[in-house]
Amino acid sequence: MFTLSKTKREKGLEVVQKDIDNTLLDHEVLIEVLSASLCGTDVHIYNWDAWAANRMNPPLTVGHEFSGRVTKVGKGVDRVKVGDIVSSETHIVCGQCEFCRTGRGHICQNTKIIGVDTDGCFAEMIKMPEANLIIDKSGTDPKYLSVLEPLGNAVHTMLHFDIIGKTVAVIGCGPIGLMGVNVAKIVGAKKIIAIEVNPFRMKLAKEIGADVVINPKEEDVIKRVLEETNGLGVDVVTEFSGHKTAIEQSFKYIKKGGHMALLGITPDKIEVDLSNDIVFKGITIYGVTGRKMYENWNQVSAFIEAKRIQFDKIVTHVIKMENFEEAFKIMASGNSGKVVMIP
Amino acid sequence: MFTLSKTKREKGLEVVQKDIDNTLLDHEVLIEVLSASLCGTDVHIYNWDAWAANRMNPPLTVGHEFSGRVTKVGKGVDRVKVGDIVSSETHIVCGQCEFCRTGRGHICQNTKIIGVDTDGCFAEMIKMPEANLIIDKSGTDPKYLSVLEPLGNAVHTMLHFDIIGKTVAVIGCGPIGLMGVNVAKIVGAKKIIAIEVNPFRMKLAKEIGADVVINPKEEDVIKRVLEETNGLGVDVVTEFSGHKTAIEQSFKYIKKGGHMALLGITPDKIEVDLSNDIVFKGITIYGVTGRKMYENWNQVSAFIEAKRIQFDKIVTHVIKMENFEEAFKIMASGNSGKVVMIP
Amino acid sequence: MFTLSKTKREKGLEVVQKDIDNTLLDHEVLIEVLSASLCGTDVHIYNWDAWAANRMNPPLTVGHEFSGRVTKVGKGVDRVKVGDIVSSETHIVCGQCEFCRTGRGHICQNTKIIGVDTDGCFAEMIKMPEANLIIDKSGTDPKYLSVLEPLGNAVHTMLHFDIIGKTVAVIGCGPIGLMGVNVAKIVGAKKIIAIEVNPFRMKLAKEIGADVVINPKEEDVIKRVLEETNGLGVDVVTEFSGHKTAIEQSFKYIKKGGHMALLGITPDKIEVDLSNDIVFKGITIYGVTGRKMYENWNQVSAFIEAKRIQFDKIVTHVIKMENFEEAFKIMASGNSGKVVMIP
Amino acid sequence: MFTLSKTKREKGLEVVQKDIDNTLLDHEVLIEVLSASLCGTDVHIYNWDAWAANRMNPPLTVGHEFSGRVTKVGKGVDRVKVGDIVSSETHIVCGQCEFCRTGRGHICQNTKIIGVDTDGCFAEMIKMPEANLIIDKSGTDPKYLSVLEPLGNAVHTMLHFDIIGKTVAVIGCGPIGLMGVNVAKIVGAKKIIAIEVNPFRMKLAKEIGADVVINPKEEDVIKRVLEETNGLGVDVVTEFSGHKTAIEQSFKYIKKGGHMALLGITPDKIEVDLSNDIVFKGITIYGVTGRKMYENWNQVSAFIEAKRIQFDKIVTHVIKMENFEEAFKIMASGNSGKVVMIP
Repeated sequence: MFTLSKTKREKGLEVVQKDIDNTLLDHEVLIEVLSASLCGTDVHIYNWDAWAANRMNPPLTVGHEFSGRVTKVGKGVDRVKVGDIVSSETHIVCGQCEFCRTGRGHICQNTKIIGVDTDGCFAEMIKMPEANLIIDKSGTDPKYLSVLEPLGNAVHTMLHFDIIGKTVAVIGCGPIGLMGVNVAKIVGAKKIIAIEVNPFRMKLAKEIGADVVINPKEEDVIKRVLEETNGLGVDVVTEFSGHKTAIEQSFKYIKKGGHMALLGITPDKIEVDLSNDIVFKGITIYGVTGRKMYENWNQVSAFIEAKRIQFDKIVTHVIKMENFEEAFKIMASGNSGKVVMIP
Repeated sequence: MFTLSKTKREKGLEVVQKDIDNTLLDHEVLIEVLSASLCGTDVHIYNWDAWAANRMNPPLTVGHEFSGRVTKVGKGVDRVKVGDIVSSETHIVCGQCEFCRTGRGHICQNTKIIGVDTDGCFAEMIKMPEANLIIDKSGTDPKYLSVLEPLGNAVHTMLHFDIIGKTVAVIGCGPIGLMGVNVAKIVGAKKIIAIEVNPFRMKLAKEIGADVVINPKEEDVIKRVLEETNGLGVDVVTEFSGHKTAIEQSFKYIKKGGHMALLGITPDKIEVDLSNDIVFKGITIYGVTGRKMYENWNQVSAFIEAKRIQFDKIVTHVIKMENFEEAFKIMASGNSGKVVMIP
Repeated sequence: MFTLSKTKREKGLEVVQKDIDNTLLDHEVLIEVLSASLCGTDVHIYNWDAWAANRMNPPLTVGHEFSGRVTKVGKGVDRVKVGDIVSSETHIVCGQCEFCRTGRGHICQNTKIIGVDTDGCFAEMIKMPEANLIIDKSGTDPKYLSVLEPLGNAVHTMLHFDIIGKTVAVIGCGPIGLMGVNVAKIVGAKKIIAIEVNPFRMKLAKEIGADVVINPKEEDVIKRVLEETNGLGVDVVTEFSGHKTAIEQSFKYIKKGGHMALLGITPDKIEVDLSNDIVFKGITIYGVTGRKMYENWNQVSAFIEAKRIQFDKIVTHVIKMENFEEAFKIMASGNSGKVVMIP
Repeated sequence: MFTLSKTKREKGLEVVQKDIDNTLLDHEVLIEVLSASLCGTDVHIYNWDAWAANRMNPPLTVGHEFSGRVTKVGKGVDRVKVGDIVSSETHIVCGQCEFCRTGRGHICQNTKIIGVDTDGCFAEMIKMPEANLIIDKSGTDPKYLSVLEPLGNAVHTMLHFDIIGKTVAVIGCGPIGLMGVNVAKIVGAKKIIAIEVNPFRMKLAKEIGADVVINPKEEDVIKRVLEETNGLGVDVVTEFSGHKTAIEQSFKYIKKGGHMALLGITPDKIEVDLSNDIVFKGITIYGVTGRKMYENWNQVSAFIEAKRIQFDKIVTHVIKMENFEEAFKIMASGNSGKVVMIP
């Protein structure tokens, strides 16, 4: 079968033909990949930057976001059936550690991520544990269903704190930030303030439902957010950019008693005036890892079944997998939402 | 009446005789002060450091922690009676702002603190709004009842997150940290790890109930805490020191999914590896301001009525108010718990 | 001024001309009533049933739901200004009891309800404490703003438990149940199942956003709800009917681990199979009184400012107050949403 | 091996010798039983009452509460080792249903209970899934470790709602109610009011830490509880009796805004004045099933490691398993705490 694999410890991906391994353990499922989408992680791996060089051991099939059709199931499998259209949680967790044993598998101590630690989904077929699979009941075009995993991140970030009837800042409108705007709109946030520098993404944020879109290159973010919130600041900050300055600024426009959910990652340390910006403000900060299993997936499924996710705006490009070089180029340009590849 | 007042914008306090103002608004109460305790804030004011010079407008009677006997009540007062022994919330809040109107008066936008913004309690008499007063039902010696306000801070810090059956680090064993150890013991924490450099306070922490006391000058805190917690780290960090290094270290020994409550204040910015220490760890951080009104006071009262607070260990010195210079000297030495003055 | 008052301990209301009392305590506000709506409580009072005879002491101006324009303020008032358009919390609370002092004024021990315990709003003018007033910032037609108080009940009932992405049953589609459907739609419930016998109200429920409307007179409610939820039952039950059978049935179609919020009141005792329907199912039940002050009001205001409340469907009749007999007749017919009177 | 089994659909148990089945699936563990304790469920099975006749299919080895020593592990097992001393969760859950997949295995749709649905622990050896086993790290005498499972029930019931610094009623002081008193004491409840008719158990409740013990046969429970709580009622009701009248009374002495956790089961329907006792009081009711997996077990382990559980008071009788008739007799008398059998 066709795969996109990392074979050498250097920049780039290679097309590699591999045999399909259709021997299944009792709890495993074989899936024909119908779509696979690009994530920032894939770009790190493509570029073979410091993080990738440190984390990954080639050779390995790359890619983790996908949808597919079940073609074979292990003998212990009964929730999932052959023919089911599925999306997938990309973290394979141990089920044994303190976190897994208390309903917090998203921070499992022994997580393996497909396409990073084990063979991934930029391929015609993939094997997964049954537990990770989410059966689609909405009839959505499978080309969109690979993006449910990052949508789960967006749901985790937006819904960890209460945003119903609240003002919320969404920092960074890459694909997951855009999904964040979509989620905030679905659940009745009072005012959604998006912060983004790229005009293409600013426009998308507006179309998906942001009430205000601020370009930090063109105006003073702190001043503007305070103006939009009667001088009190936003109730909730949601962070998708990983941008040091953007994060540090958010401490200045979050309301007293406010809540901050951080998903974006950054190579830099941030500096915080702990006394004035955390202690005296009485705020709460939460670090978002993965997706709460499987509560966040249930929320994702509910929004999709209710036809509330604007896939046509979130997915801006659909490309044949063999043209992956183009896909990575579009992704790098910043002038896109999600980029989806079809095997 | 006798008062300790700040009269000039310089170091020190002065004994000033003032008239007792016994005209009361409808909701006000006049109280004879029975005890008054020293807080770090009083030391800042005594020393007239940058913070004090910036915040305070002399002349003003100093001091905020007190207990007393009600001697007169305004005509709208009916919860509190003449003769009641009372402690007092020291934040006078507006009741009108968004925070007050949603049960979050501890972060009121218009808070006035007695002894900082209005005349305080280092005096023979003080006037207070009825709402701020907590009636003692325990029969505790009034010399101890001035420390209920910082005890409210300790309760707020220790109980904001669940510590029942959990491992908890208490950073800094000054008077409030010691109270924190006491509270953790009362509610059944699994293991209480205190971190403190002063041998006098280390000993007190141990006596009050810490299972482990670590001196960062003598051993590697991060290594030791991880050893004490099977390499996973503590479930909950409670911070009372305001010490930059101590705070930064705590991010390295908090457990994944852990909770951090920060009360200590620091002039320095702290540096945080946001990606590795907050996002990937999935932790939650909360800034503690004041006392939840009046839920934290109810908890304080409950513990006192149940005779669970070790006042005899927490209060190490009781001194006549006229000997305030000695009281401030003891406080500055670090070789004390709470220092209480009697008018 | 014109008022509708209860003057005798018997059925009916009387038009009574009264003097306007414009002497204000420091914290009071005088308001010109712009609209006033009918509640079930008013019908009890009109009919002088057992509950009314037991609770009320005529003579008294009746009515509690209103909007108005501020015409005069007491000298301690500064949040509210002359000319403001306001709605009003109808519970006047003591501020002193354990519940008020811990942010739970909605269950204040000493609540006085306007139009029941003190003079109400079926009049040209009304006096209120400043704290109770909610300033309109949305520019909504004042004829609609009297219904914010019951809308606060709906918000309290619908949002006490998490309904985002969940299946929710709304039992009873009188005016508050209809508002409940509206709220569930706003916050992204997965499927809204309304239960109602009156065809007029069934139609309104559908138009406002119910996905399914069940008429218990025509089909087996338990069977149908289970069919609509894959046999598992609904995640959340919200009860607005006070109908004994409807309530008892809901225990049979609530999902294991589900949540039930009860607002409707009933003269009958209900019978519960506690073991099978509460203990083994692991459900949670919450009794809804009033509106959380003032968190629920903030949510109401947010939804209105975001133009999400379908006032034109919820308010079906607007009538001059002098034609109150007609208003009560329409209300009694059941073929209405909210009935609003204009002085 | 020796077993106590139900072989016929009639009253009583039989001693049956069975072969030890030491073939293990990958995730299974073989355990030598060191102690096994009696639960009310075992009494139902012994007596072959309506519930038992309806639920159980003999022949089956009976018993579910046990401790033991691991003698063999399946090849997929790595958390548990041969030689470990273990207790065990008695619910074998599916891991696949909506509840298991969202961290709520205690209400799993497909739960199998050992000793009821599959062979149990009144035997020399038992096989269990690895996931169910809790490794003892406290060095407690194994004769006590069989009672961890009901202790988990007590923890679930007592800690679902916040009881720190609160007044709490414990209804019924059988073994689990006694454990409830112990837990309330550990976590710093303000006042523990136990309600029990049996003098033997009243005495134990007092010794374990109840502040007040009320005998409903000798005094008016509602009146007394109100007296003990300034007329306001208790903050939290915890129900272990399954006694219809006791449950109905508790609605009359629970405080407004209070919380009620129900574990006891009853054959009778209860009657509730929903309007006055739930809606207007604004209370919350929760049905307790099993133990939250495995959060409640972690709490149990923490209390045991901290030596806070008063096993010597909770376990009143230790008897050889062959003398099971005596064990059941003692249990039926009511004059006992937990009765433990040793194989």
